[in-house]
Amino acid sequence: MADRGSGTTLDDYTGRYAQRVQGMTASEIRALFAVTSRPEVVSLAGGAPFVSALPLDAVGDMLATLVGTHGASALQYGLGQGDPALRERICEVMSLSGIDASCGASPDDVVVTVGGQHALDLIGRVFLDPGDVVLAEGPSYVGALGVFQAAQADVVHVPLDDDGLIPAALEEALATVTKAGKRAKFLYTVPAYHNPAGVTLSEPRREQVLAIAQRAGLLVVEDDPYGLLGFDGEPLPALRSRVRDGVLYVGTFSKTFAPGLRVGWVLAPHAVREKLVIASEAQILCPSALAQAAVTTYFTTMPWREQIKTFRELYQERRDALLHALTDLMPAGTRWTHPRGGFYVWLTLPPGLNAKEMLPRAVTARVAYVPGTGFYADGSGTGHLRLSYCFPPPERIREGVRRLADVIGQEMAIRRVFGTGAPADEPSVSWTPAGTFGAAAGHTPAPDVS
Amino acid sequence: MADRGSGTTLDDYTGRYAQRVQGMTASEIRALFAVTSRPEVVSLAGGAPFVSALPLDAVGDMLATLVGTHGASALQYGLGQGDPALRERICEVMSLSGIDASCGASPDDVVVTVGGQHALDLIGRVFLDPGDVVLAEGPSYVGALGVFQAAQADVVHVPLDDDGLIPAALEEALATVTKAGKRAKFLYTVPAYHNPAGVTLSEPRREQVLAIAQRAGLLVVEDDPYGLLGFDGEPLPALRSRVRDGVLYVGTFSKTFAPGLRVGWVLAPHAVREKLVIASEAQILCPSALAQAAVTTYFTTMPWREQIKTFRELYQERRDALLHALTDLMPAGTRWTHPRGGFYVWLTLPPGLNAKEMLPRAVTARVAYVPGTGFYADGSGTGHLRLSYCFPPPERIREGVRRLADVIGQEMAIRRVFGTGAPADEPSVSWTPAGTFGAAAGHTPAPDVS
Repeated sequence: MADRGSGTTLDDYTGRYAQRVQGMTASEIRALFAVTSRPEVVSLAGGAPFVSALPLDAVGDMLATLVGTHGASALQYGLGQGDPALRERICEVMSLSGIDASCGASPDDVVVTVGGQHALDLIGRVFLDPGDVVLAEGPSYVGALGVFQAAQADVVHVPLDDDGLIPAALEEALATVTKAGKRAKFLYTVPAYHNPAGVTLSEPRREQVLAIAQRAGLLVVEDDPYGLLGFDGEPLPALRSRVRDGVLYVGTFSKTFAPGLRVGWVLAPHAVREKLVIASEAQILCPSALAQAAVTTYFTTMPWREQIKTFRELYQERRDALLHALTDLMPAGTRWTHPRGGFYVWLTLPPGLNAKEMLPRAVTARVAYVPGTGFYADGSGTGHLRLSYCFPPPERIREGVRRLADVIGQEMAIRRVFGTGAPADEPSVSWTPAGTFGAAAGHTPAPDVS
Repeated sequence: MADRGSGTTLDDYTGRYAQRVQGMTASEIRALFAVTSRPEVVSLAGGAPFVSALPLDAVGDMLATLVGTHGASALQYGLGQGDPALRERICEVMSLSGIDASCGASPDDVVVTVGGQHALDLIGRVFLDPGDVVLAEGPSYVGALGVFQAAQADVVHVPLDDDGLIPAALEEALATVTKAGKRAKFLYTVPAYHNPAGVTLSEPRREQVLAIAQRAGLLVVEDDPYGLLGFDGEPLPALRSRVRDGVLYVGTFSKTFAPGLRVGWVLAPHAVREKLVIASEAQILCPSALAQAAVTTYFTTMPWREQIKTFRELYQERRDALLHALTDLMPAGTRWTHPRGGFYVWLTLPPGLNAKEMLPRAVTARVAYVPGTGFYADGSGTGHLRLSYCFPPPERIREGVRRLADVIGQEMAIRRVFGTGAPADEPSVSWTPAGTFGAAAGHTPAPDVS
């Protein structure tokens, strides 16, 4: 067994990788995790749900019974599309967002995935060739941008405001793409409690966006991880609930149950569903039978609706803590969104400040956030940052905001003393109208929450 | 909420898919599952491990304790690379195949995946552009062929015989690829207890194959799901154990513990490992924390070495049952391999018979197998089929072989009465030498298993 390792031609792999590897870079959010897991840091960075609110002993007992009685199937391979019993539970959960048989939803058109991320990746696999155009909100979910980057697609951002995606901007984006001789493969959108923007697509805009998409023959990928975590009454009916075709709906149990199971899904038009299943089998053979059985059992035998209510109340309390602390402590010139659900607030720094450059000073002051640049494919977002209120308890959130406000105040003082710093945030796309997040000018934040 | 579904332009998605979708077809094996799950059919088709041999109650109790005491982390997101504690256990398991610190193996270079399939897919993502060449045994694992197909790579098969991959054929394949102005990105190989061929790369050939690969600068992807399931003493040292660089080693807990957890891994050179992690994060964010914690706890607190011994003895008994039944019952002119581990026997039909065309008649006779064509990227393999002995008990295996022997006998009788049928199997590649599985002529099976 000679060691032929040293001196071979194989030490350098640079010339061997696929082209898509060139664009692969570690997400800024993931890179932050090492730092923010230090206990002295108040992390307003990660999007980890507060799973300690689950009845852990009861979930453990549920698993013991499940494996003891059905282990032969729960520990075995399963169908690539996912377990039929789980797909029925998924349809029950989707019906809370208005997605039911009346709009053609059926367990047969559900594909179970390894969390919502895998659902997005499968959609990318089935639809995206290198150079294809994807429309996505600006800012947009960093994990989706990672999928589009790995697919070597070009992302064209469509700006948001407090009512979500701006329909006129969507039409402009479509026109620009068409003028460039290209065709957008789909619109990727998070209509409810947007990550990272914290805004929700308003009822009239839902109709407008769908009408534009249907007129343009534009497929819509509706990513809805937070739809059941609204703080003001019933969930808004999902985009998918309003049309029978043209929308791929992506869901996950990561926020309504637990992310550690990695169970999500896509509801897709029938023809597309078959492609997604084949793509998924080539990737992972089948999703975990144990994780699927755990979710099925949990959503069949345990008080999951009450648990979601518990989560909602918990996150609402934390949202309130964050917004109140921001109002009380932030320097003038700082603006932020006012989420009515979900996990995130999008904060706009006073003009001239750069969230990415400020981060080391914030971490030194023992508070962490995610710089806005991570949520744009084009390097914009420097004047913004994302704050998460899902994980730390309210008093820690307030302490984190106090530290962040101090850091911002110091940055402003430095700017006043030493003059110019980083340039103001630039619009992410040429058609970004004033008054949206992509632009530095004009946007007035909504009044404090409800 | 108008229903705009009918009459839109979105009903037909044909023109919208990515190019890679054209080559995506459902695997023949997966399509068989529906039929073979009928209880009256003896399925020698699937590769499902016999997980009922696990101590299910004890595994269930283990999970209850795990979630009750560590649920806050076991139900949470984790690191994209996988849990460090699991990566240490993986190194312990790999050390049984000779892969340890002496050849540079380290938990830091392990990437946890959603089963071995996901590991192969990640390797495809990181290394394969459309049109790239991959060398793979002929026949080869159907799931790997699915990955290469999805990556739009061209597979060049290298024939096997009873001692595994034929080194001279590998050199010929490399020369042919070079002559065509291409470069093979890697050799994909299952050296131990091959799926589907049931053969094992001999000790001298391990050295020869590595020497050829290192000389040619050819990366080797060593897929080793069955390495610990040998029936004749200690496992052969893995290819990876013999070199420090140039081999990506793929492992899985699907056969040593349970496939329903979907936990596998890649051990990769450090530079490659980083790319694999980024690719995996873009696909799934992170592997299931619960599944990882379950594997870690199982391989820390439970008698896993004894359990693997139990599996080995169980599969050996079934292998014996299959080989004895084949010897006793198969018509003259039928040949098969004699596995010393793993799950599979590769059977060569009498000249002129076609395993795929015969399958409906076999299923009617209540026995199922996988036709050989599924294991070739180029449509060859018609005269072969794969028999699995991992799941049915010995008496069912014998009954399945009896039914299959009858079907083959009837096919032969029909051929004798009505003359020519399907043509004999054609060599899969032009450099296939006589005496290998790809060719119809000359191969003499080894004597029956010790």
